[in-house]
Amino acid sequence: MKAEIICIGTEILLGQILNTNQQWLSLKLAELGIDVYYQSAVGDNPGRLARAIKQGLLRSDIVITTGGLGPTVDDITLEAISDALSKRLIYNKKIAGKIKTHFGGQCLNMPPGNLRQAHIPEGAKVLENDVGTAPGFIVDQAGKMLIALPGPPRELDPMFERYAMPYLKKKAKSDWIIKIRTINITGLPESAVDRKVKDLLESPPPVTVGIYAKPALIELKITAKAKNEKAAKVLIDRVDRKITARLKGCIFGRDSETLEGAAGKILAAKHKTLAIAESCTGGRISDRITNVPGSSGYFRMGVVVYSNDAKMSQLCVSPGTIYKYGAVSRQTALEMAKNVREISGADIGLSVTGIAGPGGATKSKPIGLVYIAIAMPEKTIWREFHFRGEREVIKFRSSQAALDLLRRSL
Amino acid sequence: MKAEIICIGTEILLGQILNTNQQWLSLKLAELGIDVYYQSAVGDNPGRLARAIKQGLLRSDIVITTGGLGPTVDDITLEAISDALSKRLIYNKKIAGKIKTHFGGQCLNMPPGNLRQAHIPEGAKVLENDVGTAPGFIVDQAGKMLIALPGPPRELDPMFERYAMPYLKKKAKSDWIIKIRTINITGLPESAVDRKVKDLLESPPPVTVGIYAKPALIELKITAKAKNEKAAKVLIDRVDRKITARLKGCIFGRDSETLEGAAGKILAAKHKTLAIAESCTGGRISDRITNVPGSSGYFRMGVVVYSNDAKMSQLCVSPGTIYKYGAVSRQTALEMAKNVREISGADIGLSVTGIAGPGGATKSKPIGLVYIAIAMPEKTIWREFHFRGEREVIKFRSSQAALDLLRRSL
Repeated sequence: MKAEIICIGTEILLGQILNTNQQWLSLKLAELGIDVYYQSAVGDNPGRLARAIKQGLLRSDIVITTGGLGPTVDDITLEAISDALSKRLIYNKKIAGKIKTHFGGQCLNMPPGNLRQAHIPEGAKVLENDVGTAPGFIVDQAGKMLIALPGPPRELDPMFERYAMPYLKKKAKSDWIIKIRTINITGLPESAVDRKVKDLLESPPPVTVGIYAKPALIELKITAKAKNEKAAKVLIDRVDRKITARLKGCIFGRDSETLEGAAGKILAAKHKTLAIAESCTGGRISDRITNVPGSSGYFRMGVVVYSNDAKMSQLCVSPGTIYKYGAVSRQTALEMAKNVREISGADIGLSVTGIAGPGGATKSKPIGLVYIAIAMPEKTIWREFHFRGEREVIKFRSSQAALDLLRRSL
Repeated sequence: MKAEIICIGTEILLGQILNTNQQWLSLKLAELGIDVYYQSAVGDNPGRLARAIKQGLLRSDIVITTGGLGPTVDDITLEAISDALSKRLIYNKKIAGKIKTHFGGQCLNMPPGNLRQAHIPEGAKVLENDVGTAPGFIVDQAGKMLIALPGPPRELDPMFERYAMPYLKKKAKSDWIIKIRTINITGLPESAVDRKVKDLLESPPPVTVGIYAKPALIELKITAKAKNEKAAKVLIDRVDRKITARLKGCIFGRDSETLEGAAGKILAAKHKTLAIAESCTGGRISDRITNVPGSSGYFRMGVVVYSNDAKMSQLCVSPGTIYKYGAVSRQTALEMAKNVREISGADIGLSVTGIAGPGGATKSKPIGLVYIAIAMPEKTIWREFHFRGEREVIKFRSSQAALDLLRRSL
């Protein structure tokens, strides 16, 4: 089955909102084995919208619309669908009751426009809205299906997953599905990853590999088209093993696994505790570590020592070290890591000091120069990095390198 | 003039990447006074792509394509445009020279496929690619314009701004432009903001107001259509003044101004220094404060005291306070703020303690309970909050509330 997605709203065409529904729905449809051939966005214009829907029903089996189901005069999706399908809009008492209850529950006066939302095209199946008032619906006839969903992701996502997906699964009876696995890599530039998996990037369907580069993060996406989940997994596992063999230590996780999650998992498994001393990253590493639920089990404390004074008073970095080598130096990083470990009583001390810019650079110490050190019971290690980018990018790259070094040294 | 945007790439239809080009280009076109009537995405299929381009040229004055200009076999935009316009592709020596130089400069062997990129349709104007190898181009004839741009934003954005925008500006000679100003608000729920500006949200063109809610952040976007920048500014200023009068203290900035930037600006102007003690926010506030260039001028230090031990050893919070009132209490927050101020020698001490979840809650202290305190020379203040959401959302909401309280108390 072929599908297309039509997102409705002049605010999309004006660039006032980032349209994330298309990606979200496309991923879900791929899981169901439904091909998406077109995505489009049209404004709140009845004629253009009705034409887009008619065209969609001519060239695709399934048309999914998002948006325009609300109570205001701009919300014209109901009328446009009624026009495109030549179907009357019917007042649905059950929906009207739910809308009234919704307002009653919040002790609000219902604006009269809200009862427009209680209409659906003749013969349509209602899709419940568990979060808001506007219901969605499915019109399914003569081998063509139209699914109307609300625009806000917090209403659309549960409605689609709970009510539209089971319906589509039964109807589509696709003889294939698509599965995607993302392999998350850091510590190598894109060109190096590209070279190592060049042949895999050219592998033909049913299992393909794509490379996506972000700052200090490379994603390899393995996409398999197969007749069921199990067959897709076999195809993906085969490629995953090849990639793993070639990139080993640089892979920190799969799919939604984060670097801080990966580091935390090892800390928890090894019963090690951590303390962090940050200068140029300004708290980013502690923030990321504490995004992981359960991190209070291994994270002892963090200090953000932005000034030389703070480095000396909070971390007892010796004035001589800062005077002789500078605050951005291997020596200062090492003292920071050792001392934060000692002060906190943690097993591991991690430190970062560097120049994030735009100020603070000198000839011998340019923007992007960063030292990272890790103090462990048995040894202390350090690395020097030269990062490029704006202030926030350098902070992020530094946090990525620090968490990666932590993960590897465990 | 009416424009439409066609984004090309099967990876978009599979949901493998979030398409941000449509929003970016739509905003730029609005600035130029060019109406966008359709956005669409099609895959790497020659027939469907050529049809989409032909349809676009029938119904719009300007068709902008993005993607598919690279060197691989999937990159079919050149051929599809040549097909749709019935124009031959011409080998361009100058482009070929630039591509060869690009590879030479990086000491790389050029794959032969890369010279495909040296072709452009007969009569097209080349758009330079200052970042990558694939040039863009404009075909402009018989009152219709086709602009082909590369897919990666880091190549597309500078190419469009430097080379396509000046051309469009001259050609479009629009008798109007669109300007948008965003007013950033925190500390009020969406429904409260909505109530205060209800009449403005319904104001008719040429100046409209939209409301966009994110966690702990409400944006009011004022959009004006006018004959030039100055006229648009007058229209926007008038509405801005009304909104400001009604929401005063809850407005922390406009357009890209952040809460941490607003707080930092006041700290710098008043020559005040800051120290931060964080528990449940885990470093998020220090991280945000240090995202602002120049923050080293006022930010003394931060501590992330995740455990009770760290609260006592690093911040000298009295064991009695923690034992009697708990780590998540007004009393602990107050001691944290006072002590971090004293230890650091900063003018202002800011503290946060709370329960971000999913663990750590008790009957009397549920997930989302957060105390924020600020110690100043003349007084110490505190607030109790109850936030909803996942762990990371609670961390973010807490950091928003803390920065907002800091900004207001200055």
